[in-house]
Amino acid sequence: MDEELSLDCHDWEDLRHSFQIAADLCISKMEGVRDDAVWTPTPDRVKAHFNKALPQEGAALDSLICDFQENILPYGTGNGHPRFWGWVHGSGSAAGALGEMLAGFMNSNVGGRDHIANHVERQVIDWCKNIFDFPSSASGILTSGTSMGTIIALNVARNEKADADVQNLGVSASRRLVGYASAEAHGCNTKAFDLLGLGRESLRAIAIDDRFRMKPDMLRDKIAADRTAGLRPFVVIASVGTVNTGAIDDLCAISDICRAEGLWLHIDGAFGGLARLTDRFRGELEAMSMADSIAFDFHKWLHVPYDAGCVIIKDEAAHRAAFSARREYLESTETGLAGGAPWFCDYGPELSRGFRALKVWFTIKAYGIRKLAALIQQNCAQAKNLEAMVLAAPELELCAPTHLNIVCFRMLFDKPPQATDALNKQIVAMLQTQGIAAPSTTTIDGKTVIRVCITNHRTRSEDLALLVSEIRRLGGLIDPQV
Amino acid sequence: MDEELSLDCHDWEDLRHSFQIAADLCISKMEGVRDDAVWTPTPDRVKAHFNKALPQEGAALDSLICDFQENILPYGTGNGHPRFWGWVHGSGSAAGALGEMLAGFMNSNVGGRDHIANHVERQVIDWCKNIFDFPSSASGILTSGTSMGTIIALNVARNEKADADVQNLGVSASRRLVGYASAEAHGCNTKAFDLLGLGRESLRAIAIDDRFRMKPDMLRDKIAADRTAGLRPFVVIASVGTVNTGAIDDLCAISDICRAEGLWLHIDGAFGGLARLTDRFRGELEAMSMADSIAFDFHKWLHVPYDAGCVIIKDEAAHRAAFSARREYLESTETGLAGGAPWFCDYGPELSRGFRALKVWFTIKAYGIRKLAALIQQNCAQAKNLEAMVLAAPELELCAPTHLNIVCFRMLFDKPPQATDALNKQIVAMLQTQGIAAPSTTTIDGKTVIRVCITNHRTRSEDLALLVSEIRRLGGLIDPQV
Repeated sequence: MDEELSLDCHDWEDLRHSFQIAADLCISKMEGVRDDAVWTPTPDRVKAHFNKALPQEGAALDSLICDFQENILPYGTGNGHPRFWGWVHGSGSAAGALGEMLAGFMNSNVGGRDHIANHVERQVIDWCKNIFDFPSSASGILTSGTSMGTIIALNVARNEKADADVQNLGVSASRRLVGYASAEAHGCNTKAFDLLGLGRESLRAIAIDDRFRMKPDMLRDKIAADRTAGLRPFVVIASVGTVNTGAIDDLCAISDICRAEGLWLHIDGAFGGLARLTDRFRGELEAMSMADSIAFDFHKWLHVPYDAGCVIIKDEAAHRAAFSARREYLESTETGLAGGAPWFCDYGPELSRGFRALKVWFTIKAYGIRKLAALIQQNCAQAKNLEAMVLAAPELELCAPTHLNIVCFRMLFDKPPQATDALNKQIVAMLQTQGIAAPSTTTIDGKTVIRVCITNHRTRSEDLALLVSEIRRLGGLIDPQV
Repeated sequence: MDEELSLDCHDWEDLRHSFQIAADLCISKMEGVRDDAVWTPTPDRVKAHFNKALPQEGAALDSLICDFQENILPYGTGNGHPRFWGWVHGSGSAAGALGEMLAGFMNSNVGGRDHIANHVERQVIDWCKNIFDFPSSASGILTSGTSMGTIIALNVARNEKADADVQNLGVSASRRLVGYASAEAHGCNTKAFDLLGLGRESLRAIAIDDRFRMKPDMLRDKIAADRTAGLRPFVVIASVGTVNTGAIDDLCAISDICRAEGLWLHIDGAFGGLARLTDRFRGELEAMSMADSIAFDFHKWLHVPYDAGCVIIKDEAAHRAAFSARREYLESTETGLAGGAPWFCDYGPELSRGFRALKVWFTIKAYGIRKLAALIQQNCAQAKNLEAMVLAAPELELCAPTHLNIVCFRMLFDKPPQATDALNKQIVAMLQTQGIAAPSTTTIDGKTVIRVCITNHRTRSEDLALLVSEIRRLGGLIDPQV
């Protein structure tokens, strides 16, 4: 046999130096982010660079780091910038990136077996159970985000509430299973119903009140109508922080309905759930502990690098029953590597899973939950502050009440509705392409609005004042009559 | 308002230094891995360390790095060690860890929008389409692994082949959908049928031949029987590399049946698929290009850090139709951050997705596909070499033919079958707990066997010779009659 190959390098000092160069680059970017454009469109030349043939031969790490510096680093989403407020993005952090690097070296498969990553993940889940006042007997699993967490929770709920063995026989064996969420609920819930074989139409959209919250009376009526029609209601999904406006459903009223009707209560707390850590929202979110399951993200308001979410489920046995299905090659043993518990493959669809818990552990340990909570509260105060600036500006119109951290408003133009919509979109595109700020847009009551979602630990009040003045300036530029 | 907080540090030089210390630690571990125990059980003291209350206050990064060094780094799975051959684990690499660190800093959400991470992911998918001779019009998405890739592919297949609008109405609206895989197929396929609402029993296990491959005649018969029973066959899952023995199903025969019957052909190529890169297996795996979808992993035989898999799907429109469901807040625009294409949330269940493509891109660019392929071929040659050693040892029995990279064998004892099973388990546990080597066990034809799966770029022939001698030594220790 020829000399045996490996991927290891010949010069380990060189490798140390490469990591140092690469980390320094990224730290410099983070240090100077306030002076950068929020977002820079990727030039066509750079796009073409990622349209190459499969590389046959290797390249030196240092040349790849240069490639990264030139062609990747400048063209990110911009969510590390203090004036990024689009969709719901966390800002990231150094501790999170450090945890990600160490996970990359550990290269753990956290699907099972007896090794430390399982203990770190269990620790993080225990902390989450504590945050939401779930009992210590509850279970949980880290996920890529709330979309996956929702799929896992609804799968457990589906199996528990069906009137047949749907796990083995399929959902056709049960009376048709239907669920409920507010008309403002996140699209991931509909996608979960689809994936789980229940059908998108089996998730009923319940009408909302003037604060964009599900109307409990309408929920009760719809459940009754579905029962009359011979269907099998099984779950209500309450939103804690809707994407459009940050609305929080009335958890006490919904929880009462679920208990009376024997339905599973799932909470979509993707970003809003962690507001329970703050003095301001603790009371309103007290009733989250009544839920059967909660899905939420670390990569939003805890600023853990993407992706990192979690689902916790009160009934551990139901959770395990839904996903445990190990074949002979995954048998546990009492001693050795095949020992240990839990095996996370018993709590979700994945047999291979990375060591996502490490970056969460690093983030919470490095900053402490008190500071992370203070930053959530700071963002909510900044949103109220922005709302006040909008209300004070005669050419701006507030389009939804600001409850959590989202402000929806628009610039008024003396134009027909469609033209006004287009001009507001144009303002947002100009803010983004000029690198000034990155809000996003959405539609509220049929109107296009500018949507500012502050899940950003770097935002200062001066950034929001700049946003308002720039919107007024750009609005005047594109329509001088304003 | 008080002074505004952020998570940024006060001393950026300190931060640079912390990353340097942390990277150096991990690189030293990698450099010296051959001299380490393969696996070290986590002491109870260390387990207790991860059973602490939610930290209220933060801690210095350097103290967390010490914590990592003491309590996490020594207690990994061991899959970086040259004598780790348990289950199917990749060995990781420096380039992959570097990519992971950079992704941690980029903090990209690759669910959508116009930024560079989408281009890097599309580039990686294009390379995969090239590897499997899929047309450029095919689509794909990076996943946590083959489990998720399978769920995505089967969801597309389900929607395409149902006789009703199951996406909106649920699978109950269609005649019962059934699929087929070999009795040796991976458990993730059964879990996917469960999750998708089809039921575990709707995946039929087809009998295998003496090389552990699905019998095409049995497949044809079962499809006919299901049709006669009024069911709706929709998919055949062919295995390229089964977990137990590395068997490769007869792709030409299965592909012919799928074409004749109008069924979707999905290939589970979790680790074996990439053997198509080698001269030795290119011919046998030529017909992978006939599949409608292929799921496989980068974190196994390409040694990308966990987790990283992929699914490619020949019919892009069907793929997009299955997952595209964007709400108003995710509307695309022509210019600005909300532009760009593709948006990967249209190709899978996740709205938030990390920048997993970067570590894959780094791995392939750093080592080149030629060397990565040579390492796959090297592992297969090492497996044949081990098989020869087993055949030459009178007290060892080969329990399955070695075709790819897996060798299943056992030590013979003059004992009843159950006792022999237990002794072989004991040998594997001793190998692991003494840090000598880490094969795993499985069951073949009702017998417990020692299973050595070589997906390891650090393994040398001498490591396998040591394994055989240590098994014989330990066998003699636990039963001196041998």
